Amino acid sequence: MGEASPELPSPPPPFSSDGDGNSVPINLEQGDPTMFEEYWRSIAGDAAVVIPAWQGMSYLSSGAGVCWFMEPKLAEEIVRLHKLVGNARTAGWHIVVGVGSTQLFQAALFALSPPDAGEPINVVSAAPYYSYYPAVVEYLRSGLYRWAGDARAFRGDAPYIEVVCTPNNPDGFLNRAVLREEKGRVINDLAYYWPQYTAITYEADHEIMLFTFSKLTGHAGTRIGWALVKDEDVARKMTKFIELNTIGVSKDSQLRAAKIMGTISDSYEAASPPPVEERFFSYSRCVMAARWRRLRQAVESASSFSLPEFPSPLCRFSGEKSGLHPAFAWLKCEREDAEDCESFLKSLGIRTRGGAHFGADRRYVRVSMLARDEMFDFLIKTILSVG
Amino acid sequence: MGEASPELPSPPPPFSSDGDGNSVPINLEQGDPTMFEEYWRSIAGDAAVVIPAWQGMSYLSSGAGVCWFMEPKLAEEIVRLHKLVGNARTAGWHIVVGVGSTQLFQAALFALSPPDAGEPINVVSAAPYYSYYPAVVEYLRSGLYRWAGDARAFRGDAPYIEVVCTPNNPDGFLNRAVLREEKGRVINDLAYYWPQYTAITYEADHEIMLFTFSKLTGHAGTRIGWALVKDEDVARKMTKFIELNTIGVSKDSQLRAAKIMGTISDSYEAASPPPVEERFFSYSRCVMAARWRRLRQAVESASSFSLPEFPSPLCRFSGEKSGLHPAFAWLKCEREDAEDCESFLKSLGIRTRGGAHFGADRRYVRVSMLARDEMFDFLIKTILSVG
Repeated sequence: MGEASPELPSPPPPFSSDGDGNSVPINLEQGDPTMFEEYWRSIAGDAAVVIPAWQGMSYLSSGAGVCWFMEPKLAEEIVRLHKLVGNARTAGWHIVVGVGSTQLFQAALFALSPPDAGEPINVVSAAPYYSYYPAVVEYLRSGLYRWAGDARAFRGDAPYIEVVCTPNNPDGFLNRAVLREEKGRVINDLAYYWPQYTAITYEADHEIMLFTFSKLTGHAGTRIGWALVKDEDVARKMTKFIELNTIGVSKDSQLRAAKIMGTISDSYEAASPPPVEERFFSYSRCVMAARWRRLRQAVESASSFSLPEFPSPLCRFSGEKSGLHPAFAWLKCEREDAEDCESFLKSLGIRTRGGAHFGADRRYVRVSMLARDEMFDFLIKTILSVG
Repeated sequence: MGEASPELPSPPPPFSSDGDGNSVPINLEQGDPTMFEEYWRSIAGDAAVVIPAWQGMSYLSSGAGVCWFMEPKLAEEIVRLHKLVGNARTAGWHIVVGVGSTQLFQAALFALSPPDAGEPINVVSAAPYYSYYPAVVEYLRSGLYRWAGDARAFRGDAPYIEVVCTPNNPDGFLNRAVLREEKGRVINDLAYYWPQYTAITYEADHEIMLFTFSKLTGHAGTRIGWALVKDEDVARKMTKFIELNTIGVSKDSQLRAAKIMGTISDSYEAASPPPVEERFFSYSRCVMAARWRRLRQAVESASSFSLPEFPSPLCRFSGEKSGLHPAFAWLKCEREDAEDCESFLKSLGIRTRGGAHFGADRRYVRVSMLARDEMFDFLIKTILSVG
């Protein structure tokens, strides 16, 4: 049996204001992808949606797949985009749409939990793991599953579900499953497996693959995610979860996601494509690469912090070697007088999320790389001023 | 302590096709509100929404309320519409938006469950209760709450949550809370408390009041509900639930709901309002009243079925006495050879939901009154043919 659940740090209030009256002007704690807004403003009317009053009223959708609330047009654009990027296999996989990949994660837990087990199935992930995993697994104290901490510390032969995030949130590495036991199932969270964040090194073909529109294009407010699911029974159970949880997913959001994703694919497939730097993945990869260059320069010229070192593998999408430019920087505080990096940066006016929330040391913080320019500039300035 | 959880009937597969290979052409089992589509087609462009590519991208909303993902425009239109109809007090209540009232129901359970109780809090509702309540309470086997059946059978002094649906799903009556114990909390589900279904007899001012856009206007596919919540701590916890469950609610859907609700209010408040029969509540009340007249005539001319008898109270909205025209007909089979009304109607080509799902006798079925004309016509024809 796995180890007893570790004591969870209190879930962070990621979307609330600072509760202790201090002014924390720069919030880089969440991954709110506002950086992409500039690109979508430049697209202007091309990717707008118009929804007449009578459209999309029914609970039901017209598609024939397992997921009865999936809009066929969105399914089409998902398949098209994965084919373009080459980051995931879709032929032979069912698609389940969700209100973001957070809901789909919970749907997958529900689907993979044995309904008649004597005790909850263990859910593990290799530290540092996404801080939301323990909070989301535990908030309802489900009898079906429970958080069992760091996958590397998991022992015994009890059934388990391992959650693998690739590129990893918070540190950006291209993780693979740590455990290889027969009684294990794996949920692959591929939220950041897009060309702007990482080289596309292989065409993912896992049992369950989660994606989110939020981190693909920056449209977090639309609340759309999708899962590619190999096993039909698992797809049915995930669909059932979403039926009981929210009776499906907004059609307005699905339509919007389809439109915007279609715009991206169109720009690559058009007979007369726009200049390469205006195509979405090239543009956003350039922005991410530029930000990481500035961050590394600032960190290297100072001595107070350090960053992970990444490989530069071949990217199947671009055909060239590409560095990793994750959505978050896993920053480590190297100063002797600053063991708690989150508090240290907060005293300098920057809110980040401390390592303990990710099962890691307090010397680490996760810093969003997706905020607006002025907030990113303040981060660079602060690092340089600290020295 | 309340009674042990009753044995639950298997949750119905409300949105799946018939699984045993039989052809069931007319599906009146769900409450898919497609009947309203005709009205919204007649409105044409007036209530369309246009969403540019750059809009609504952030997770966050700009409002100042407890619910950090609530779009201020939607909050405004909610308050405006409740003021127009007079069906619920809003001044002094917090508004929490959800992915339909199904999610908000779960958020309310989470918020009202004591986090440090030794055992799950009991959740009860007076039979016949909405078939989804037991399914939604139990699907995750939460340690926080559990289904404890019919409120009228609840005994003892253990804490409980009573769910009161008014007008009731499935039978349409204007229910009030059955239990009056100190240790009890109440969730009021007011999904159908709008003029097209019932007289507005009082301005509701309960602790937690749930509403859904689906049943107000027929836009089920948009997936929007809202809760009016008196206690700030409860509102915060409900917000927290939705944060962990789906990281908020689609902004596209919120915008659409605001637009359509605004159109309704505008038509009543305009300097030169449209003819009364073209205003939404008058139109839809007329349609519902006409359908109920036809249904009663058919049932009375045959002897196989019976319907509930409703009062005709004064409606504060119209200023006149108004009958009740619920979204569902609680039809009872009076024939000796048809104890299982669901099977009986299925053999005649109509899918309904049997009484057992609602904690009631199998002689009862719940039949949707919101389907398209041709489906409703088939129902009437079938009742008349049975005799």
